[in-house]
Amino acid sequence: MTEPRKCNYSINKGRLLRQLELLGDIGGGDDGVNRLALTDADKAGRDYIVARMKALGLNVTIDCVGNIFGRRDGRTDAPGVMTGSHIDSVKGAGKLDGCLGVLAGLEIIERLNELKIETHRSLTIGVFTNEEGARFQPDMLGSLVFARGMSVEEAYEKRDGNGVALGDELERIGYKGASEGSHETPFAFVELHIEQGPVLEEERQTIGVVRDLQGISWTDIEIAGTANHAGTTPMRLRSDAGYAAGRIIQFARDITSELGGSQVGTVGSVQFKPNLINVVPSKVRMTMDLRNTDEDKLRVAEKALDSLLINLEKSEGVSIKSARTARFAPVTFDRRICSVIRQSADEFGLKSDMMTSGAGHDAQMLARICPTAMIFIPSINGISHNHREASHAKDIEAGANVLFSSLMKLCAHRGNELDQISS
Amino acid sequence: MTEPRKCNYSINKGRLLRQLELLGDIGGGDDGVNRLALTDADKAGRDYIVARMKALGLNVTIDCVGNIFGRRDGRTDAPGVMTGSHIDSVKGAGKLDGCLGVLAGLEIIERLNELKIETHRSLTIGVFTNEEGARFQPDMLGSLVFARGMSVEEAYEKRDGNGVALGDELERIGYKGASEGSHETPFAFVELHIEQGPVLEEERQTIGVVRDLQGISWTDIEIAGTANHAGTTPMRLRSDAGYAAGRIIQFARDITSELGGSQVGTVGSVQFKPNLINVVPSKVRMTMDLRNTDEDKLRVAEKALDSLLINLEKSEGVSIKSARTARFAPVTFDRRICSVIRQSADEFGLKSDMMTSGAGHDAQMLARICPTAMIFIPSINGISHNHREASHAKDIEAGANVLFSSLMKLCAHRGNELDQISS
Repeated sequence: MTEPRKCNYSINKGRLLRQLELLGDIGGGDDGVNRLALTDADKAGRDYIVARMKALGLNVTIDCVGNIFGRRDGRTDAPGVMTGSHIDSVKGAGKLDGCLGVLAGLEIIERLNELKIETHRSLTIGVFTNEEGARFQPDMLGSLVFARGMSVEEAYEKRDGNGVALGDELERIGYKGASEGSHETPFAFVELHIEQGPVLEEERQTIGVVRDLQGISWTDIEIAGTANHAGTTPMRLRSDAGYAAGRIIQFARDITSELGGSQVGTVGSVQFKPNLINVVPSKVRMTMDLRNTDEDKLRVAEKALDSLLINLEKSEGVSIKSARTARFAPVTFDRRICSVIRQSADEFGLKSDMMTSGAGHDAQMLARICPTAMIFIPSINGISHNHREASHAKDIEAGANVLFSSLMKLCAHRGNELDQISS
Repeated sequence: MTEPRKCNYSINKGRLLRQLELLGDIGGGDDGVNRLALTDADKAGRDYIVARMKALGLNVTIDCVGNIFGRRDGRTDAPGVMTGSHIDSVKGAGKLDGCLGVLAGLEIIERLNELKIETHRSLTIGVFTNEEGARFQPDMLGSLVFARGMSVEEAYEKRDGNGVALGDELERIGYKGASEGSHETPFAFVELHIEQGPVLEEERQTIGVVRDLQGISWTDIEIAGTANHAGTTPMRLRSDAGYAAGRIIQFARDITSELGGSQVGTVGSVQFKPNLINVVPSKVRMTMDLRNTDEDKLRVAEKALDSLLINLEKSEGVSIKSARTARFAPVTFDRRICSVIRQSADEFGLKSDMMTSGAGHDAQMLARICPTAMIFIPSINGISHNHREASHAKDIEAGANVLFSSLMKLCAHRGNELDQISS
């Protein structure tokens, strides 16, 4: 064990907390933050971030899918380091999810400016479009396009629940940038994020060094039965789309019991039609969210779902259409970046542990094109995607400082490869 | 067996079918008829009916809860006979439900006028407010108030899903009439209606003589859990309102298997909040519709539901509020009126059978204050509460003729009691 080194740099906690409040007020109300991707509220949030980037002297570019990049030049042209996250939200969200990663990055830029520090490599703050997937699917769409995992043309054609195209909304809010290659491939990427789960709090750790990330499988399910009178139609003569939906909800619980381990399953969205108390439902549209760190088990869960849908068609006399709207294999992050993060936590005397992310993050897309890892801080009571989402100020400060120190190590790195950095 | 007597009167089939089309076009579209109670479309339908009543020389009154009565005077002041039904619809409805009973009544009035027939007792066509319960609960509200089963004040305070009060909507569309007692208690009431179920078609009968009606129990259920991230929240730490809803959907099926007989159970309406693919649902609002001809068994079903809700609170860590929004005991109709209907069917040489109604109808409220029964005609494929709802023209004609003949017998009846009528 080496004695923890003292870190040279630290962020301005009060300023970062104020920035989080300011951004959270944009699209925020009593029921939480409603800044769904490419809405007017999202545009207002983007305008705020771009203005701040410019005020900090960053070179701002917008790419074809609306990702925002603010670059602080380095002394050299060596490939730059990137940090960042997203500012779009779910409905009724908290003020930290995504925003912490973006605003901590900007706080670090401001400190570097104040301290007049020049870095060997450039440092870029990235703000990625439609991370949440609450409006357009798949989630993490902006970082997926940036990582060349989806074409711009395909992204533009994605539509929200009202049939509005992503490309049209980008244009409407003025964030359809020039070209696909508006920013270089980073030398390394580190994302700071709240955990959004209860693990760090339960284990009394301040810093989570995220070494891998669950695979995600999203399925849209549409069940068609026959609308009929709830009083006069004998049970045996019904084709009840609502009952089939109930069975699918039950499946999400059953498959997690069966597979155990990291498997989770959620039915988050259900719409009945005609949705009247005395009419047997003719249509149900619903979603299934399945996640596992083990790709093989995730495939078992998907197969079991597909079998259930076929069986329900037979037993209930309904017809079911399903489509996989998002599918990401589990991701393993870069061990060398994980070491840099852990070392940085040690320097601040912070307790850290290696962990798995249950949520999808932009970092998983960046991992396709450059060495990547993530820093988690605890979420109070594990609550997220909820206006009661919160983290302790000291943990927010700790996470931003560990990010600061990690980025400085990466920006200072001279070689073409990261191999020697953690030695 | 007596030889069927030839009936003296019959309706004009073509005219009745055209009237059904005309009324169906008001609030009608590709997805069926949308004429929910006290909407602009319902007002347009009411205006159409009132104009036709006036053109037919009827004495039109509107009561305090918007029920419309058109009376054709008799030769005497003896208590009058009433027929009628409703013209409000569910979403995406057909053109027959309720409208057949009202328009067949008006067709009979028109034939009486053409034939210059005077009746001993007056004949009134009643059009009752909010029968469907698709907008305001309980269903059959207008006839319930008319039968003094609910106070006007209570009815005015009933609110739709957007919090709009029934009293305000009555006033807005100009159908808040003068007083509670704007129409006398009828001597007898007969309602013609489509079956809305498959029984008559399966049994190849043309006329159903409805001798009783299922008891109805409606429950509104509100489940409160905790919104949380669908990826990061371990299954054991969730309080998932959506999963509890799935269990309640399953209950509707299980209780019908368990109780058998006439028991039916339907979850027709479900709303998830925040209704996002990657968020554990924090709230679900849903409904339960339970029906049985046996009051004791219906109570068993209600008790089982209440127990399930208590158990789900414990096992799922959710809190559940429930309210019974409608509760009507099974109804037995008047045997003497049933005999009149059966005799009338015989006169036309029509096959008829005694049966139970699975749906609620205005007639069940009228049965509280006067001798009442119903006439059913077959629904094609048993489909109702659906834009594909239909009946064969010959069955519509048959039902209207049986109603005509039954009303004539009742209007001609001289005594104060019905006892001798079926002899």
